[in-house]
Amino acid sequence: MTPPMTSGAPLRVGLAGLGTVGAGVVRLLADNAELVAARAGRPIRVVAVSARDRGRDRGVDLSGIDWVDDATELAGRADVDAVAELVGGSDGPALTLARRTLAAGKSLVTANKAMMAHHGLELARAAEGAAEGAGRGLMFEAAVAGGIPVLKGLREGAAANRVHHLFGILNGTCNYILSRMEADGRDFADVLSEAQGLGYAEADPSFDIDGVDAAHKLALLAALAFGTRPAFGAVEVTGIRHVVAADVAEAAALGYRVRLVGVAEAGPAGLLQRVHPHLVPLGHPLAHVTGPTNAVAADGDFVGRLFFQGAGAGAGPTASAVVADLIDLARGRPAPPFGVPADRLAEPEAADGGERRSRVYVRLNVQDRVGVLAEIAAAMRDAGVSIEGLTQRAADTRGALVAIVTHEGPERCVAQALERLRGSQSLTGAPMWMPLLG
Amino acid sequence: MTPPMTSGAPLRVGLAGLGTVGAGVVRLLADNAELVAARAGRPIRVVAVSARDRGRDRGVDLSGIDWVDDATELAGRADVDAVAELVGGSDGPALTLARRTLAAGKSLVTANKAMMAHHGLELARAAEGAAEGAGRGLMFEAAVAGGIPVLKGLREGAAANRVHHLFGILNGTCNYILSRMEADGRDFADVLSEAQGLGYAEADPSFDIDGVDAAHKLALLAALAFGTRPAFGAVEVTGIRHVVAADVAEAAALGYRVRLVGVAEAGPAGLLQRVHPHLVPLGHPLAHVTGPTNAVAADGDFVGRLFFQGAGAGAGPTASAVVADLIDLARGRPAPPFGVPADRLAEPEAADGGERRSRVYVRLNVQDRVGVLAEIAAAMRDAGVSIEGLTQRAADTRGALVAIVTHEGPERCVAQALERLRGSQSLTGAPMWMPLLG
Repeated sequence: MTPPMTSGAPLRVGLAGLGTVGAGVVRLLADNAELVAARAGRPIRVVAVSARDRGRDRGVDLSGIDWVDDATELAGRADVDAVAELVGGSDGPALTLARRTLAAGKSLVTANKAMMAHHGLELARAAEGAAEGAGRGLMFEAAVAGGIPVLKGLREGAAANRVHHLFGILNGTCNYILSRMEADGRDFADVLSEAQGLGYAEADPSFDIDGVDAAHKLALLAALAFGTRPAFGAVEVTGIRHVVAADVAEAAALGYRVRLVGVAEAGPAGLLQRVHPHLVPLGHPLAHVTGPTNAVAADGDFVGRLFFQGAGAGAGPTASAVVADLIDLARGRPAPPFGVPADRLAEPEAADGGERRSRVYVRLNVQDRVGVLAEIAAAMRDAGVSIEGLTQRAADTRGALVAIVTHEGPERCVAQALERLRGSQSLTGAPMWMPLLG
Repeated sequence: MTPPMTSGAPLRVGLAGLGTVGAGVVRLLADNAELVAARAGRPIRVVAVSARDRGRDRGVDLSGIDWVDDATELAGRADVDAVAELVGGSDGPALTLARRTLAAGKSLVTANKAMMAHHGLELARAAEGAAEGAGRGLMFEAAVAGGIPVLKGLREGAAANRVHHLFGILNGTCNYILSRMEADGRDFADVLSEAQGLGYAEADPSFDIDGVDAAHKLALLAALAFGTRPAFGAVEVTGIRHVVAADVAEAAALGYRVRLVGVAEAGPAGLLQRVHPHLVPLGHPLAHVTGPTNAVAADGDFVGRLFFQGAGAGAGPTASAVVADLIDLARGRPAPPFGVPADRLAEPEAADGGERRSRVYVRLNVQDRVGVLAEIAAAMRDAGVSIEGLTQRAADTRGALVAIVTHEGPERCVAQALERLRGSQSLTGAPMWMPLLG
């Protein structure tokens, strides 16, 4: 059922970076060459590559492809129409290459969420400047949620809608760790070191587990969905480092699962962007997103809720997204990178997350002695927090564990209550809180 | 956060049909005019409408829009760039309008799944013939799964992939009915008449409940995903008319929910397309698709499984899909309607569904007397069906209910076993069978 090859001048690609994703792109373009050409209207051909180690065997055929030692030279080659930047890193060679590519009037496809979150506005302007009638573009589907075509879904599929709210599971490593904790009842550190051994988590996992990677992606989704400038600096970020097995067990007892969720809301109070562990009710689609899968939900004023799910990372899915962008470029007339021209993106005002009304889960590790519960209850009352449910259990030799679910109210009240308790001798560790989703 | 109006000549639309969806399109283009113009690069303006009853109040402002009595005249108007066909029906005025629009070198946007399933190939050829360098297109996102941008997701988002398998919940009326049966323990006929009273089902519901509507959509999805000609006639269709409360209850006891699922598989044996009630395991995302929601999953060779979910019908979601297509047209350079040029779509060979290997649920209503179970067991054995589990319960005054789950095997064996039992005096009604999903 392969459609035959189409004619037409090929789109000539310079590929920077031959790691997992880069090698995946080379393999995909070889394996599915005819199909890609039929859908793109013309062949897509890698003419030059650049990577760190020329000698390494990557299991893909690079014959007939020029090797370039300095990736930034790909931008200047006369035989390159588009550059695929798969180097990574918010600055450095990736950014130099991106700037030079767009300045040369060529198209750029990138999987680089960090660079786009920090420099996306500048790069979009450069792309639009170079794009005058020339069919040039800046595309970054692979930067957000791996193989899921969620940027296309929002920028084009939901283009008729005012989107005011989106949320999702944006980091596969965290979701894998939380899923394992849930399945095995194990603690965070234990699962993390196993994940590192299996290659599911980096040697330095902080970008993933501290929520920075999810925050990059959230800032890009919010910009595209709401028509605002990417505002990575305004994302409130809390990772999963402090989620313990007891939290996962308490959540399960309450009918919830713990997930690292990115939430963005555009409201009268401004733009709220937050990455934080949440309690997700079992009936919610995000509760059933397990392992390294990603998912994004967005609410439009006409379409209602759209939900996209798929593989959040890996060679195949990310290559699929990179090549989808190349196919769009081969067809011509790319849309503005953020859906509307960069100069029309509004400067968002950051909303105060503390004003957000939520039901909240709070976990306190306390000494097991007279008066502790009264102290906690008083702190909650004094901060105006209304308690919906509370359980106290013997934890370990160190004392007891108190888990609280609040009624809906401003989150700042919960923060105030925890602030009141912070100096207390009754607490044996830092309190943990998580909003309940939905 | 509304981006300001952009300049550029408007895309002028002739709108045929002012029912729920047509009125929704007018409302959307009025409410979100600036946002749509910013994303489309130019305004989108309805210049002429046509509908049956000029006097009816549809709650939308039609001032400044020409009224045309004969919808097919929209195709010939010099001030119309694109026609939105929201009349419905596989033939008749809708088809005449579609043919005339494309013959006139104008673009067509349609929500008409019946017309596209029957005449999609002819219309795609006409669009591509008219499209030479002119930016004309034929787009039908609204015809499949309402507001979900699943055609775009497959045609463009998954364009780099060979897709070999897709399935989904494609009819909101059936899913609403099955969800109510499940929640309330009620029987099909009872829930259907309630749904009709509430406007969730048509007065003549056969297109929905007999699976024809889902089959139209499945044929379009399969064509687009697999690069084959739409083959509606080759879809094996069984609706939900014969699902009874006891089936839903037995499924629940086994850890499943009953869903009307469309499945398409492209394999060495040919193309299998089937709409049939299935038992969906509780851990599967489709089990959590309730009410009138639709969902589609597709497996690509590089991207893995993609999953799209959203509102399957209704004024807002369908209008969202229609206007997304208009925005794409306003930007220019539409892709071929089925992803590759129509003349390159392969003629699919229909696979024999009987060869499909499945686990199958079988329900038999039987007389409660000696030897019935032995007769059933013998029929299964003689047809080569291996039984995984069986329960017999007293049903009602008429006798007993036997529910069987088979081990995986060719479905034709189950069909043979039921054929052997068809003439039996032991059966008090027609047997029911459903494959287990996944």
